[in-house]
Amino acid sequence: MPNPTAAMLVIGDEILSGRTRDANMHHLAGELTGHGVTLCEARIVSDDRAAIVAAVKALSKAYDHVFTSGGIGPTHDDITADCIAEAFGVPIDVRDDARAILQARYDAMGTDLNEARLRMARIPDGAELIENPVSGAPGFTLKNVHVMAGVPSVFQAMVATILPTITGGDPVLSQALSIMRGEGDLAGPVAKLAEDFPDLSIGSYPFQRNGAFGAQIVIRGTDGARVDAAMTRLAAEFAE
Amino acid sequence: MPNPTAAMLVIGDEILSGRTRDANMHHLAGELTGHGVTLCEARIVSDDRAAIVAAVKALSKAYDHVFTSGGIGPTHDDITADCIAEAFGVPIDVRDDARAILQARYDAMGTDLNEARLRMARIPDGAELIENPVSGAPGFTLKNVHVMAGVPSVFQAMVATILPTITGGDPVLSQALSIMRGEGDLAGPVAKLAEDFPDLSIGSYPFQRNGAFGAQIVIRGTDGARVDAAMTRLAAEFAE
Repeated sequence: MPNPTAAMLVIGDEILSGRTRDANMHHLAGELTGHGVTLCEARIVSDDRAAIVAAVKALSKAYDHVFTSGGIGPTHDDITADCIAEAFGVPIDVRDDARAILQARYDAMGTDLNEARLRMARIPDGAELIENPVSGAPGFTLKNVHVMAGVPSVFQAMVATILPTITGGDPVLSQALSIMRGEGDLAGPVAKLAEDFPDLSIGSYPFQRNGAFGAQIVIRGTDGARVDAAMTRLAAEFAE
Repeated sequence: MPNPTAAMLVIGDEILSGRTRDANMHHLAGELTGHGVTLCEARIVSDDRAAIVAAVKALSKAYDHVFTSGGIGPTHDDITADCIAEAFGVPIDVRDDARAILQARYDAMGTDLNEARLRMARIPDGAELIENPVSGAPGFTLKNVHVMAGVPSVFQAMVATILPTITGGDPVLSQALSIMRGEGDLAGPVAKLAEDFPDLSIGSYPFQRNGAFGAQIVIRGTDGARVDAAMTRLAAEFAE
């Protein structure tokens, strides 16, 4: 059975304006690969209701799982929860269990659970909460969409919570070989290798080092023996 | 007139597997912001023909410009040029002007322009070449899609070539203020500010520093005096 598929949706103007560099996608990609879930696509959209709703609909239909980051805080530009509710056509309101989590958190800190903070207890009907051990305000899962915070430490904690609940496939193993030859010299033999190992994914990633051209050939697959066999042949062909 | 819109399409398994972290999107985002082009969306897809074709079609229809990175090298997994041709329903073949560029390059290096390298001269009918001062093989523009290499040094050189040919709008100016208060305390006043300055984009980006919560409030817009006015009010409200 093929591994389950996933997409990530990063929500936030700050990535698209170049102000910050996304870290969550890279983290999730590595975690999913180790868990045997294939990340097929990622999208980054701005804090725009129509764009978020359209992306959630498209991705949740196309893939087994969707992971979102960003837009679940207390400020006016945090509209993700409402967009998820709209995408699935379900009501959304402050929910008692989420409110209780926030109340306990802010009571302990001596902080007022004001109207803005209470927005973080707005959860679409039918969703399950995702615990947030870092800052309290929970994420949630609705259908196949896992809604998480954008702050990297919170995002990572939520991923660690949610991933064990997802049935993964075989972890994808990979081996890489860097070869100091132009990609044009490697292309023929590597294409032949890919043809002979159709069960593996073989990629070529060119680089420059001290002015010379090289490429890293990455062989990926779920069967370790097959990855070994392909790598052995590649290494023998390009033994220096 | 609103600024022109753009999307970026990053093509490559290596980002989605977590092996490498994308650098090109972040670079392009900053360049476009300075040039007065609004980056509205980014997508990352794997080296999969159907996925690339579908994304190119959707994005080129939705936005004024599409910038792609990756998949235009000589190896078997480089399928971007063919996918662009398919998306627009035009033929693709080795083109004389692109071949001449490669021939001159490899002649100078004493390297054979073999069959694999010649693939890099495959250009869809009707496209204009984008110069590649770093490693020779050109990118191209077809309709509103600018097709560039994935290697960051080459991508950046191509962006520098193509950007001056694109009519931009007013550069987006931004000012940021970091406030060591929880977002929940800032949310009310910041929402009011956003309401009073509907021509500006005001975002709140929470962070943790030494265990304390803070948020960076970013005010963006094309009218510097308006950005100044909003920032002056924000600073006055949260003067320590």
